[in-house]
Amino acid sequence: MTFDTVIRGARVVTAADTGVADVGIRDGQIAALGMQLPAGREEIDAHGLIALPGGVDSHVHIAQPSGEGIEMADDFASATASAACGGNTTVLPFCLPKPGMSLREAVQDYHAQAKDQCHTDVSFHLIVKDVDPQTLGQDLPALIEAGHSSLKVFMTYKGLALSDRQILDVFEVAKRHDALVMVHAENEDAIEYLRDRAEAQGNTAPLYHARTRPLAVEREATHRAIALAEIAGVPLTIVHVSNGESMEEIRHARARGSLVFAETCPQYITLSAADLDQAGFEGAKYVCSPPPRDTTEQARIWAGLEQGVFDLFSSDHCPFRFADSAGKDAPGARASFRNIPNGIPGVETRLPILFSEGVVKGRISLQRFAALSATNHARLYGLAPRKGSIAVGADADIALWDPTLRRTIRQADLHHGSDYTPWEGFEVTGWPVRTLLRGVSVMIDGALTGTRAGGTHIARGKPEIRL
Amino acid sequence: MTFDTVIRGARVVTAADTGVADVGIRDGQIAALGMQLPAGREEIDAHGLIALPGGVDSHVHIAQPSGEGIEMADDFASATASAACGGNTTVLPFCLPKPGMSLREAVQDYHAQAKDQCHTDVSFHLIVKDVDPQTLGQDLPALIEAGHSSLKVFMTYKGLALSDRQILDVFEVAKRHDALVMVHAENEDAIEYLRDRAEAQGNTAPLYHARTRPLAVEREATHRAIALAEIAGVPLTIVHVSNGESMEEIRHARARGSLVFAETCPQYITLSAADLDQAGFEGAKYVCSPPPRDTTEQARIWAGLEQGVFDLFSSDHCPFRFADSAGKDAPGARASFRNIPNGIPGVETRLPILFSEGVVKGRISLQRFAALSATNHARLYGLAPRKGSIAVGADADIALWDPTLRRTIRQADLHHGSDYTPWEGFEVTGWPVRTLLRGVSVMIDGALTGTRAGGTHIARGKPEIRL
Amino acid sequence: MTFDTVIRGARVVTAADTGVADVGIRDGQIAALGMQLPAGREEIDAHGLIALPGGVDSHVHIAQPSGEGIEMADDFASATASAACGGNTTVLPFCLPKPGMSLREAVQDYHAQAKDQCHTDVSFHLIVKDVDPQTLGQDLPALIEAGHSSLKVFMTYKGLALSDRQILDVFEVAKRHDALVMVHAENEDAIEYLRDRAEAQGNTAPLYHARTRPLAVEREATHRAIALAEIAGVPLTIVHVSNGESMEEIRHARARGSLVFAETCPQYITLSAADLDQAGFEGAKYVCSPPPRDTTEQARIWAGLEQGVFDLFSSDHCPFRFADSAGKDAPGARASFRNIPNGIPGVETRLPILFSEGVVKGRISLQRFAALSATNHARLYGLAPRKGSIAVGADADIALWDPTLRRTIRQADLHHGSDYTPWEGFEVTGWPVRTLLRGVSVMIDGALTGTRAGGTHIARGKPEIRL
Amino acid sequence: MTFDTVIRGARVVTAADTGVADVGIRDGQIAALGMQLPAGREEIDAHGLIALPGGVDSHVHIAQPSGEGIEMADDFASATASAACGGNTTVLPFCLPKPGMSLREAVQDYHAQAKDQCHTDVSFHLIVKDVDPQTLGQDLPALIEAGHSSLKVFMTYKGLALSDRQILDVFEVAKRHDALVMVHAENEDAIEYLRDRAEAQGNTAPLYHARTRPLAVEREATHRAIALAEIAGVPLTIVHVSNGESMEEIRHARARGSLVFAETCPQYITLSAADLDQAGFEGAKYVCSPPPRDTTEQARIWAGLEQGVFDLFSSDHCPFRFADSAGKDAPGARASFRNIPNGIPGVETRLPILFSEGVVKGRISLQRFAALSATNHARLYGLAPRKGSIAVGADADIALWDPTLRRTIRQADLHHGSDYTPWEGFEVTGWPVRTLLRGVSVMIDGALTGTRAGGTHIARGKPEIRL
Repeated sequence: MTFDTVIRGARVVTAADTGVADVGIRDGQIAALGMQLPAGREEIDAHGLIALPGGVDSHVHIAQPSGEGIEMADDFASATASAACGGNTTVLPFCLPKPGMSLREAVQDYHAQAKDQCHTDVSFHLIVKDVDPQTLGQDLPALIEAGHSSLKVFMTYKGLALSDRQILDVFEVAKRHDALVMVHAENEDAIEYLRDRAEAQGNTAPLYHARTRPLAVEREATHRAIALAEIAGVPLTIVHVSNGESMEEIRHARARGSLVFAETCPQYITLSAADLDQAGFEGAKYVCSPPPRDTTEQARIWAGLEQGVFDLFSSDHCPFRFADSAGKDAPGARASFRNIPNGIPGVETRLPILFSEGVVKGRISLQRFAALSATNHARLYGLAPRKGSIAVGADADIALWDPTLRRTIRQADLHHGSDYTPWEGFEVTGWPVRTLLRGVSVMIDGALTGTRAGGTHIARGKPEIRL
Repeated sequence: MTFDTVIRGARVVTAADTGVADVGIRDGQIAALGMQLPAGREEIDAHGLIALPGGVDSHVHIAQPSGEGIEMADDFASATASAACGGNTTVLPFCLPKPGMSLREAVQDYHAQAKDQCHTDVSFHLIVKDVDPQTLGQDLPALIEAGHSSLKVFMTYKGLALSDRQILDVFEVAKRHDALVMVHAENEDAIEYLRDRAEAQGNTAPLYHARTRPLAVEREATHRAIALAEIAGVPLTIVHVSNGESMEEIRHARARGSLVFAETCPQYITLSAADLDQAGFEGAKYVCSPPPRDTTEQARIWAGLEQGVFDLFSSDHCPFRFADSAGKDAPGARASFRNIPNGIPGVETRLPILFSEGVVKGRISLQRFAALSATNHARLYGLAPRKGSIAVGADADIALWDPTLRRTIRQADLHHGSDYTPWEGFEVTGWPVRTLLRGVSVMIDGALTGTRAGGTHIARGKPEIRL
Repeated sequence: MTFDTVIRGARVVTAADTGVADVGIRDGQIAALGMQLPAGREEIDAHGLIALPGGVDSHVHIAQPSGEGIEMADDFASATASAACGGNTTVLPFCLPKPGMSLREAVQDYHAQAKDQCHTDVSFHLIVKDVDPQTLGQDLPALIEAGHSSLKVFMTYKGLALSDRQILDVFEVAKRHDALVMVHAENEDAIEYLRDRAEAQGNTAPLYHARTRPLAVEREATHRAIALAEIAGVPLTIVHVSNGESMEEIRHARARGSLVFAETCPQYITLSAADLDQAGFEGAKYVCSPPPRDTTEQARIWAGLEQGVFDLFSSDHCPFRFADSAGKDAPGARASFRNIPNGIPGVETRLPILFSEGVVKGRISLQRFAALSATNHARLYGLAPRKGSIAVGADADIALWDPTLRRTIRQADLHHGSDYTPWEGFEVTGWPVRTLLRGVSVMIDGALTGTRAGGTHIARGKPEIRL
Repeated sequence: MTFDTVIRGARVVTAADTGVADVGIRDGQIAALGMQLPAGREEIDAHGLIALPGGVDSHVHIAQPSGEGIEMADDFASATASAACGGNTTVLPFCLPKPGMSLREAVQDYHAQAKDQCHTDVSFHLIVKDVDPQTLGQDLPALIEAGHSSLKVFMTYKGLALSDRQILDVFEVAKRHDALVMVHAENEDAIEYLRDRAEAQGNTAPLYHARTRPLAVEREATHRAIALAEIAGVPLTIVHVSNGESMEEIRHARARGSLVFAETCPQYITLSAADLDQAGFEGAKYVCSPPPRDTTEQARIWAGLEQGVFDLFSSDHCPFRFADSAGKDAPGARASFRNIPNGIPGVETRLPILFSEGVVKGRISLQRFAALSATNHARLYGLAPRKGSIAVGADADIALWDPTLRRTIRQADLHHGSDYTPWEGFEVTGWPVRTLLRGVSVMIDGALTGTRAGGTHIARGKPEIRL
């Protein structure tokens, strides 16, 4: 019974348990958990630290074609470096075909982009934007079979938003081939109507991004997505739920017996529309969809996290450069909020924010933290039992946290490609001090120690729809 | 790295994970989980079996004074024997003072009754029926401090039912001393009113036990208990929720941000009021409170189990002998349902019923099974991390299940003191074939292999109210 | 103080009151209500009868272009004859442009069709199917101004269903010009998906009309319509609500403070999907949208009528000839339910069904009957105070009912253009024995006594959105 | 066709209609409504005024024994004078037995107190505080039969609060004898618990009256009262609903099909707990139960008024003298909020507040105003068709309102026995300028013109439970 590495003395946390144990790693897997395990070739002293499952961030955008002439700020190298430094070991970005590309080609291209560039493991969700016979009948079944077992559909964004019939057709494919569909639930038509009206009234500042996506816009689409899933007879995930009204729709659906999974993100417990309402163009740094709401909704989202309404806590990392949209080469964004790219960076700060605001402040347990940050992602999206927990036989994907470390979030310290963080100055207690990917330390004390080729693509199995 | 016992090759299940691993046991604790652990002095071949956390049944009545001249059918020996044979390693019975006895004396007496008589570990909830300064101010704080960190209050049963003020006073003590209060939520006055009316109309058959405790009786008390807890500012557990309307009250409370834990039991997913409506006096075998409902409510309870509304699945084992109530020495019960003792046996069948109906039929995952049957009980009632999971450092309380074993439930095969089972003839797939209590096999293939002194009382810590 | 006509001794009912009084009519208006009014030139002895406001049926389809080669069974003459014989004095059909026609032209054409052909008064709702600048910016404002102050939008039916953006644009017009929008709430895409699936499985019988429009299809569109109205800031009417889930959406909206009016129809309290499931093609006689549901939903709709969830009870009279769809010239309908024209006749039977099932059976009061059958229609759709009540100054539109008259509904006795009634054989107690339109008896004992030119178009004012 | 009095030219309003008409009065009854009625012996020119049904205030406390040594500020003479000046023609006070008195004796005594002292008509609700066989079996049936067809039970106030069983027994009597039960829904035990805790912490100021009766206290009792009514199978009225959570309980009950009537009062749309939080002892002037809440709850109550959640708008006039509780002879109230008598005066200001805030501000229609202020009271409590509307055959109880009259509410102008009004300085638009009781003007331009013997007791019939 020999180990490559033994992590010694940490409080080991899973979605079920917490307790001090040694973790013995062999061939990249967790070979044993025990008291006083025999020595490993490498010994990591983790007394006083918490060993958490490496974060699985199932909602990350990397190198996604935007079509608006503004490039996403992260490629696989920078995004996964940032993720690793934030305690993550697997991220799931979305594969979106460029115009004229088939989904199958886009996946090939995405694999090519990721190859030998990743500091964490990765696996791809498939954004379905072209709902044609080839995609539905050939490409999706083949791609799902090949390990891409989650699809995403949009109800907003011109060029991405599907009709209800198209969504149903995608659900039908998901049903037949055991994939899980994620839905971005905002009503495009309603947003467009409000946007036109706002612009007609001269309301073009970043704040109007929030004003033109009110709660009803998200609640409507949430209920519609759920109803369509009920009609097709499939489970679904509502991603980035921002407010209590949408949560109520999810509660009602569950009371009807429907299987709905729910995700929320750091922006909905810490940011608010007031952040978009700043002097100058600073508000643009907080433009994401759905938009941050207000303190009432933040409290309701917290209640949802505390009480199990939410299964997933993701970053919705969607990095842009403020310089790109605020710069003089990009007058569009200043002319109207409509042209500000939607998305904020957050893959590196997701876990410290939840740990500090949730665990340290006593709102959630360490076990719930593990479930929300890793285990449920892995189970729902077909990565379990390989990923998402600290268990014998699983990949040795572990983040060692110092629960007492106090840090102020600063752009200067982060590793993403964006030129700002919406949490500049935000103070947290607790931060990962080491990240192990399949047994290899890829980050130590904030410094990357792995290689770009350390991470790899993980082909996924069927979703576990009974959590 | 040596082990007293190694369980080899089982699929090890926790509330977070499932995966094949060896379990190394030393000094009654789980010393290691691993692949190919070194040999133990005892080797248990468990290939093809499932290793589940030994069941924790947090709702069991043993040797409880009833005051009606009918004795409970189980003492600690028989109840824990039955529990062990059903895959349990810890049961939590309720300590109820006999008339004239203080709660402190009752606890002493209960400890005396349990001593050297238990096949599983035990720990005692405290039923608060006397709400006097001595009990509130002295006894309860001392008893909680001594490891009895859960209280129970009744809203029904003459002599047990507390007034709202008394419940609030108990909540106040619980709040100050970090205990968790369990509430039996049925409105005594309403039942009494309906009972009087039924008897006045000559409706005295067992069925009228169910008819005089309609949904509204339970829903009312559920909402009231929750409201009182909100007013006092404490969490609470609503035990044995039988129907969807009460579930809705719990959902509404959670939507308000209140911390409410919910328990249900096998009777509410498998039995119905129709079972009480049988020829002769057979219906008396199904008399429990709240009563079984109908198939609609069963389906709603299932939805609650699937979707996380329920935290706990307990037996509410409350064993009487049919001969006692049906016999000629007990004309009372035949004269009116009012005199039938309320309660059915079930500590031995709880887990197989949930496993077969839930896991085998695909309604819940093995992880949820572990949470509902053991982990959440242990965490909520202050037994974690020692009990409730298969984790390094925890007691080696493990049930090995053969998931393919098909059995028909028969009274002849059970070990409780009752002379019948309400599930006579019920077919299940999956049954525990071995139960280990702190590393010692106390049941093998249905035969008790431990000793009456194998189990012990466990002093409990604070409830984990953030699951 | 002289009267043209005095109705003597009837129990006069309004939405507020019931009491015996004489009704004095002069120049087509109610000139006085009183005890022992002076004699009129015409005296109508109404002792023992109930004088109700002439029914206002705000949901009637007449001579509507269908585009499927099947003509609607009623023109203005037959529809209003049928209406008058059922106790109505005003009906509001929907003006739908034929292909290539503008809405303004369609209204002109509709006026021409109605001219000198009506046994009751009429006024037109405007169906908005073309959402272009001319219609929104010019025609609608002018038509609303000219007395057509209610618009209707469809969320189902190919060629009629609007996009969410188009609905919002119509709401915007309604908001600016004080019109009220009625919404047919069913999700076209979902129906189409289910229809394709049903046909692919060979399920083409009439029953599948109901199966492919399940509750979720209507509930979804109901919530969406409400959300869009909230976003635009307008009240709306949800027409023909068929089930409790949609009612719940309306309740939730009202709890949020939104102004939502709700209508239901006789088919949803008396018919069910089982009626569509008959031997041969008989089920086609019950094809309407939304489809009739089941007895559970009927009970929930009744509760909504009893408790004020519903403001309006209309017929949704939409008459076709069974011979047309069942005939050998129309093989389409037999080939698939998809081709059966959607709609059933009911303008003549609406009120007797509600009276008999509602008033006679004690579920609703006479006052509520008046409100549901006439007053609220008149107020919401801008006909009040001229129409909808028995009040001084109002048009003398009165139906005299014999509350004890028992009749069996028979196609042979009805006056519509359809060749069947879905209520063939349905027994009712209570039937109008005389209908007065602006003081003129247009029906006596089931026989038409007016002329085709008796009814006229009524230009309407603003909706009363505070009922 | 001759009239004693004709009111000419007013806009006559009922719960169904508004329209200009003359009102002809003969023998105290409305003999005719018409255009240009023949002259009466008395002619009242009411052009420009609104003729509303004389207000029926079904929630008024007069000369009620309080037991705390503090006398109620109004006897029948002053209370009904105040009522008449506020546009009311009937008030329904509560008959409460003094200690040692039977309910039957109390009613006799109450009749004696009222005799020849009333400026409006009166009728008595019966407070049931003694639930003994004589009261239930003999007195109540006889008293109901004699025209007192409404009962009231309290869930709060020591000495008044009934147990759930007692409430059920009262419901049973109401069911058998067709009476309607009104419930004051606040949980006495919870209040007592909070009160003890507040006092123990030295929190004795008037504000703590509100703090010790939080929403949950009222919501709990509301749900319980409804559940008990469902169990007994009776309708009920929840009086003085103060907040949105209680409203939600009522909505849920109605969605279950239960018959629940709801009342609210001016204090819940205009006052708030902040009014209790004033310097000195001024806050005592706003002490009533349930207490005023906050602006959020005010808005929710408004929504309920707008949307038909509420059937009744009453004053809960319960007049005390500030001098009595604030005076040096009454140190108790200053020592603790517990000793402040619960109740505020309001019978004179109820209607102007609702008219001004509701009708003038466009929140409710005149028809809804009539329903909320008179018609529904009369129908629910068995006074219809004699009272509550302006209809032929009804008593000529009419208030003529000047809808443009602007007044500032001042204690100096009011006629009640209290020495203050909680609405001092509150500005309203619209005030009654004449009140006619059975055809006799009892108030003109703020001056009493009737006699103390003008009003009489009205024996009531069965409640109309289908509004």
